[in-house]
Amino acid sequence: MNKTEIVTLKNEFENELYGSVIPFWINHSIDNVNGGYYNHLDKDGSIYDKTKNTWLLGRQVWMFSKLFRQNQTEKKYLEIAKIGADFLLNNAKTNEGRVYFSLTEKGAPVSIQRKIFSECFYALGLSEYGKVSGDDRFIKEAKYMMGNIWELIESPEKLGRPVYNGTPKLSSLAIPMIMLNLIEEIAENDFSSYSKEIDSCLKKIRLHYYEGMLIENIGEDGKLHDSSSGRLLNPGHAIEAGWFLIHWAQKLKNKELLNFSSDIIRNTFLRGWDNEFGGIYYFLDIEEKSPIQLEWDMKLWWPHCESLYAFLLLYSITKREDDWKNFIKVKEYTFNKFPDKKNGEWFGYLNRRGEITHRFKGGPYKGCFHVPRALLLSINILEKLTEEN
Amino acid sequence: MNKTEIVTLKNEFENELYGSVIPFWINHSIDNVNGGYYNHLDKDGSIYDKTKNTWLLGRQVWMFSKLFRQNQTEKKYLEIAKIGADFLLNNAKTNEGRVYFSLTEKGAPVSIQRKIFSECFYALGLSEYGKVSGDDRFIKEAKYMMGNIWELIESPEKLGRPVYNGTPKLSSLAIPMIMLNLIEEIAENDFSSYSKEIDSCLKKIRLHYYEGMLIENIGEDGKLHDSSSGRLLNPGHAIEAGWFLIHWAQKLKNKELLNFSSDIIRNTFLRGWDNEFGGIYYFLDIEEKSPIQLEWDMKLWWPHCESLYAFLLLYSITKREDDWKNFIKVKEYTFNKFPDKKNGEWFGYLNRRGEITHRFKGGPYKGCFHVPRALLLSINILEKLTEEN
Repeated sequence: MNKTEIVTLKNEFENELYGSVIPFWINHSIDNVNGGYYNHLDKDGSIYDKTKNTWLLGRQVWMFSKLFRQNQTEKKYLEIAKIGADFLLNNAKTNEGRVYFSLTEKGAPVSIQRKIFSECFYALGLSEYGKVSGDDRFIKEAKYMMGNIWELIESPEKLGRPVYNGTPKLSSLAIPMIMLNLIEEIAENDFSSYSKEIDSCLKKIRLHYYEGMLIENIGEDGKLHDSSSGRLLNPGHAIEAGWFLIHWAQKLKNKELLNFSSDIIRNTFLRGWDNEFGGIYYFLDIEEKSPIQLEWDMKLWWPHCESLYAFLLLYSITKREDDWKNFIKVKEYTFNKFPDKKNGEWFGYLNRRGEITHRFKGGPYKGCFHVPRALLLSINILEKLTEEN
Repeated sequence: MNKTEIVTLKNEFENELYGSVIPFWINHSIDNVNGGYYNHLDKDGSIYDKTKNTWLLGRQVWMFSKLFRQNQTEKKYLEIAKIGADFLLNNAKTNEGRVYFSLTEKGAPVSIQRKIFSECFYALGLSEYGKVSGDDRFIKEAKYMMGNIWELIESPEKLGRPVYNGTPKLSSLAIPMIMLNLIEEIAENDFSSYSKEIDSCLKKIRLHYYEGMLIENIGEDGKLHDSSSGRLLNPGHAIEAGWFLIHWAQKLKNKELLNFSSDIIRNTFLRGWDNEFGGIYYFLDIEEKSPIQLEWDMKLWWPHCESLYAFLLLYSITKREDDWKNFIKVKEYTFNKFPDKKNGEWFGYLNRRGEITHRFKGGPYKGCFHVPRALLLSINILEKLTEEN
C-alpha cells in the first residue's frame, strides 16, 4: 500500500461520508416541526413510520456532534445535533431516571426495553453534544444517566426482567463493551477517576474469551454454558469489542491487551467470514450446531463497518500485510454491496448471497451511526497513514 | 380429483405422519428421567439445548392426546401425553397463576413472557389430555387457566408490559384467534356457555379485515395504524385464522361467516405467495413498504402447514376447483421442500429461494405441533372425501 493507494482510499471514504451518507440524514431525517429525528426512512428517504427510537436519536446526536468537532466551521452539524439533544432531554427520560426505547413523533412515550442500551445511547449523545456545544446541562445529564446505568448493571432486577432459580447466570458481552465505549467517550483522556470501572469491564470481557474469540454469553464462572445462548458467536460484535479494546490498550499503553484484542479481531474474522458467498455472518454457534436466530446467515451492514475500521486501525499499529489484506477484503465486499449510489446512504440487510433484502435506509435499529462512524474513524486513520508515508 | 388421487394423497399424508413425523418425536423428545419433552432437537434428533419451552410442551401434550383420541388402541400416545402433562402441572405455573415461558430440563423456571401464549398452550394441552385420560384434575386446571387468561386479556397491565400515553392502542389478531381455537378445543360441541366470548372474539377478528385479508394489528377504532406494525400482514397467521373461522362457521351454521373466512384464505394466499420462487412469505407490509422483520422473505414450515389444511377444508365444503388447485399447489411446494426423508420430521426454515437455512427439527418455537396437526386434520378430510366419492 503506497501513498497513492492510501490517498485514493481516503478520497473514496470522504466522498461516501460527506457526499452520500451525511446528506441523506440531513435531507430526510430532521423533524423541524416537533424536534428530534425520524429514523424509519425508506430507500428514497421518505418516512414509512413516525416512531422515533431513542437508540438512534442518541447515536445521531453523537454523530453530528462528532462531525462538528471534526469540522468546526460547519455550524449546521451543531444545529442538527442540538435538535436531537433537546428532544431527548425534553422527552426521553422516565420519572425514575430510565430512558424510553421509543417515542411518538411528538415525543410521547411508546415503549421501554428491559435493557440498558437506551440509557447508554442517551448518555453517549448528550455527553458529546454537551462538550462540543459548551452547554454543561448536557454533560451533567449524561453523567447523571451514567450513574443510573451503573446502578442498573449492579441491580438488573430494576430493569423489570424477572430472574428465577432456573435462569442461567450468564454474563453478557454487550454490557462491559458498551460501558468501555461510554467511558472512552465521556472521559476521553481524563479517565483516571474511572479506573475501577475500566478494570472491572476489562475483566468481564476477558471472561468471554473462547477459542481466541469473544462469545456473547458466558457463565459467571467463566465456563461455557451448554445452550444455544451460551454457544452464540456474533462476529461483528466481537470485532467491534476488539477495536474498543485496542483504543483502551493504546490509552493504557498495555501491550498485552493490544495483542489480546488483535487476536480477537483476526480469529473472529477468520471464523465469521462466509467463504462461499463472502461477507460476515450475523450469528454462529461456536460448536457448529444450527443457530436458532432466523437471520443468522444474513449479511448486515454494521459487522462490516466494524471490521472495516478494526482492520485499518490494526494495520496502522502493526503494519502487518495480513491486516491490510483483510481490511481490503472487507472494504471491497462492503463498498460493493451496501452503498446506494442512486439515493445515497447504505442498505443494511443482505441475504447470505449478498442480495439486498430490505430496501429501507433507516429502521428501528439502523440509523445515522455505524456507517458514518466507521467512515469518519477510518478517514482519520488514513490521514495519519498519509502523513507517515 | 378422482377417488384414486384422494386415496393416494391420504396414504402419503399417513406415511408422513405415522412413518416420519411422530416417530421422530417419540424417539428423540421424551425425557424419561425428568419428565416432559426436549424441544431443541437437531437434524438427527440429538439435543442441542436442554431448555424446555412451555409453548411446545403444551402443544405436544395436545398432539399426543389427539393422536390417542384418533387411535384408541395406541396406549403409548396416552403415556407420552401423560409425561408432558404431569411435567407441566408440576412445574410450569407461577404462584400468581401465570405460566413460565421456559424451564430447565428438571423443571426450574427460566423465563416468563409478557404475553398470554404460554398460558394458552398450557390450557390447550391439559384440557385435551384430561379428556382422553379421564383424569378430571387436568380439565379443572385447564378451565382455571382459561379464567386467568380472560383476566389477562381484560387487564393486560398484569402481563408487566407498561402502557404509556404514546403507546398506540392496537388490537392484536393473535389474541381473539387463539381464544377461538381454545374455546373450540375445550368446549367442543358444548359451547353455548361461551357464546358471549365467541361473539366478542368474532367481532374483534372482523376489526382486522383489510383488503379482503386479516392484518395483524389494527387500531381499536378499526382504523389502519400508519406504522410498520399497523401495516403488518402475516399471511400464514391470517390463513390459520381463516380455518379457525371456518370451524366456527360450521358449528354456528353461519353462511356469511363461512364466506368471510373463505375469502380471507383465498385473498391472503394470493397476496402471500411468492410468484418468483414459490412458497408463502413470512411477513409483508400491506402497503408494500419494506417490512422491518429481518426474516420477512423466509419460507417457514407453519404457514405452509396452515394453508395445506385450510385449502383442503375449504375444498371439502365448496368443491370449487380453484380451492383444490391451491391445495395441490401448497402440497407440492410443502412436500417437496420441508420433509427430511433421511432422518424424519420436517425442516422448518427456508430462505426465499426455498433452500434450507436451519437444520434443526425442534427449536424454541418449532415443536411437535403444526406439522402433525395439519397432517392429522387433513387425513380426516381426505377420509371424508374418500367416503363421498
